[in-house]
Amino acid sequence: MNNKIEWIALDWGTTHFRAWAMGAGGKVLDQVKSDQGMGNLAPDQFEPIFLSHVERWLKGRTNPLSAFACGMVGAKQGWIEAAYIATPCTPPRNEQLVLAPIGDPRVQVFIVPGLSQNKPADVMRGEETQIAGFLANIPNFDGVACLPGTHSKWATINNGVVKHFTTFMTGEIFGLLAKQSVLRHSVGGRGWDSAAFISGVKLAMDSPELVTQELFAIRPQSMLHDLPANQARARLSGLLIGAELRATEHLWSSRDVCIIGDPKLAEHYNAALKFYNCQATIADGDMMTLGGLHAVAVSALAQVS
Amino acid sequence: MNNKIEWIALDWGTTHFRAWAMGAGGKVLDQVKSDQGMGNLAPDQFEPIFLSHVERWLKGRTNPLSAFACGMVGAKQGWIEAAYIATPCTPPRNEQLVLAPIGDPRVQVFIVPGLSQNKPADVMRGEETQIAGFLANIPNFDGVACLPGTHSKWATINNGVVKHFTTFMTGEIFGLLAKQSVLRHSVGGRGWDSAAFISGVKLAMDSPELVTQELFAIRPQSMLHDLPANQARARLSGLLIGAELRATEHLWSSRDVCIIGDPKLAEHYNAALKFYNCQATIADGDMMTLGGLHAVAVSALAQVS
Repeated sequence: MNNKIEWIALDWGTTHFRAWAMGAGGKVLDQVKSDQGMGNLAPDQFEPIFLSHVERWLKGRTNPLSAFACGMVGAKQGWIEAAYIATPCTPPRNEQLVLAPIGDPRVQVFIVPGLSQNKPADVMRGEETQIAGFLANIPNFDGVACLPGTHSKWATINNGVVKHFTTFMTGEIFGLLAKQSVLRHSVGGRGWDSAAFISGVKLAMDSPELVTQELFAIRPQSMLHDLPANQARARLSGLLIGAELRATEHLWSSRDVCIIGDPKLAEHYNAALKFYNCQATIADGDMMTLGGLHAVAVSALAQVS
Repeated sequence: MNNKIEWIALDWGTTHFRAWAMGAGGKVLDQVKSDQGMGNLAPDQFEPIFLSHVERWLKGRTNPLSAFACGMVGAKQGWIEAAYIATPCTPPRNEQLVLAPIGDPRVQVFIVPGLSQNKPADVMRGEETQIAGFLANIPNFDGVACLPGTHSKWATINNGVVKHFTTFMTGEIFGLLAKQSVLRHSVGGRGWDSAAFISGVKLAMDSPELVTQELFAIRPQSMLHDLPANQARARLSGLLIGAELRATEHLWSSRDVCIIGDPKLAEHYNAALKFYNCQATIADGDMMTLGGLHAVAVSALAQVS
């Protein structure tokens, strides 16, 4: 049994920090999760915070351990900017990684760049690595990848190349409305109601022009007609996800679909797509991130040794 | 010249406190504005905060001065609940006012109830008073009143009766996206661009299913193509107002329209409607609030004396 740490996988976004100590063959030996995302940090905090989380993996090292990182860590306001690669393109390769400045000789951090699209203008950071992980498993995938989240992405993929992608603010709008708008009084808790969710999806699919009206309607329905919070919450989610599905119908109605993301959220998208007779496959978002980082790590480490 | 204070007008909402000292004939003698809205206050603060603002108008009084109030002050979580009046109905009358509990014998506070609608469920508090002020000027109005704001209302009115109304979260969503979402990096300042605004309106009118996609697109357009902040801000507003106009097209395309609200915001709505050949009239929101409170005050004070 070999428990030697071969490299570090790092997913550092606006709101989260996740690192894994990786052994041979992509085995996870240890991991750390924290809410110290880049969004609330000053640039001079990036290095010390990274080191504080991975310190225990560096003890006694004489030659540097390589870390491979994706997410907002490579944004203009991140640790160091890893300039976007323009689509159409394959997911970022080893030679496109950008080395972050660091004073500790025991570790070096390689950052995976994001992807950009010129027209319509669009960008992603982090999802390109999940797509790479997915393509490592299914290299000949021909279809559309749905990556739900704060900023949901829909990417068309063919022959290993990301052809085109589109972003929706679905998750961010859900969070703002559920936590900070007048709707927060009606959608409390973490409950769910599948029928209410599908009713929201259907409303948005049938009548997208009524979505902003139906969003507010959740509040008086709870005030006047005692709409339960779990139904209200699921209806809100359904309206927003339904709007996204209406705009992407030309993609999922005619192509293979893979949903890559948080399992619970992916299941909601899957339920909505199933309602419209679309059979999607689901891939775990964290596993795809690790798979994508593993692909560049293997390539980079092979070159070094 | 008579500068005697006859009554107090009070508009107390979630985010603002506004009071006017009113003389004979609806003349404004003095006023106070504050951001001490009900949203951030505990119930035991309502009376002392009200008194602190109007104290100078109460000096030396022996008989109580009447204040007439509208807005969230009458909500369940307000000073005292003034139960909704169900539509279809005329704006609230003198005998429907609710007296707030107060320990100071120099003043009494009458609260105007809001309106509710059973199906589809909907509620308003404050706008019913603006509608009353508008109808005091144009009693035979037959058409639709558009009341833009945090929660925009569209109310169909005929023969002095509010028949039906619908609410949109347009203003609240704009505020959340402009100040707290990723778009805040792109729409800073207070600038405006009329062409960008109309482009947003038109996109939402033509393709309402693309609104959530086009909202996010503002961010990469500013990152990759240097979209100026004033254009980004106006585009965001246009997309949201356009979605509202698309959902209300059956109202404004076939009826007389009056926009009642903040003059600057009303002008944006007016510009959008003009683009679709709808000639609306505009009424100042504060003036309509005062007019509506004046109508109930005159009626109530005539009954007392």
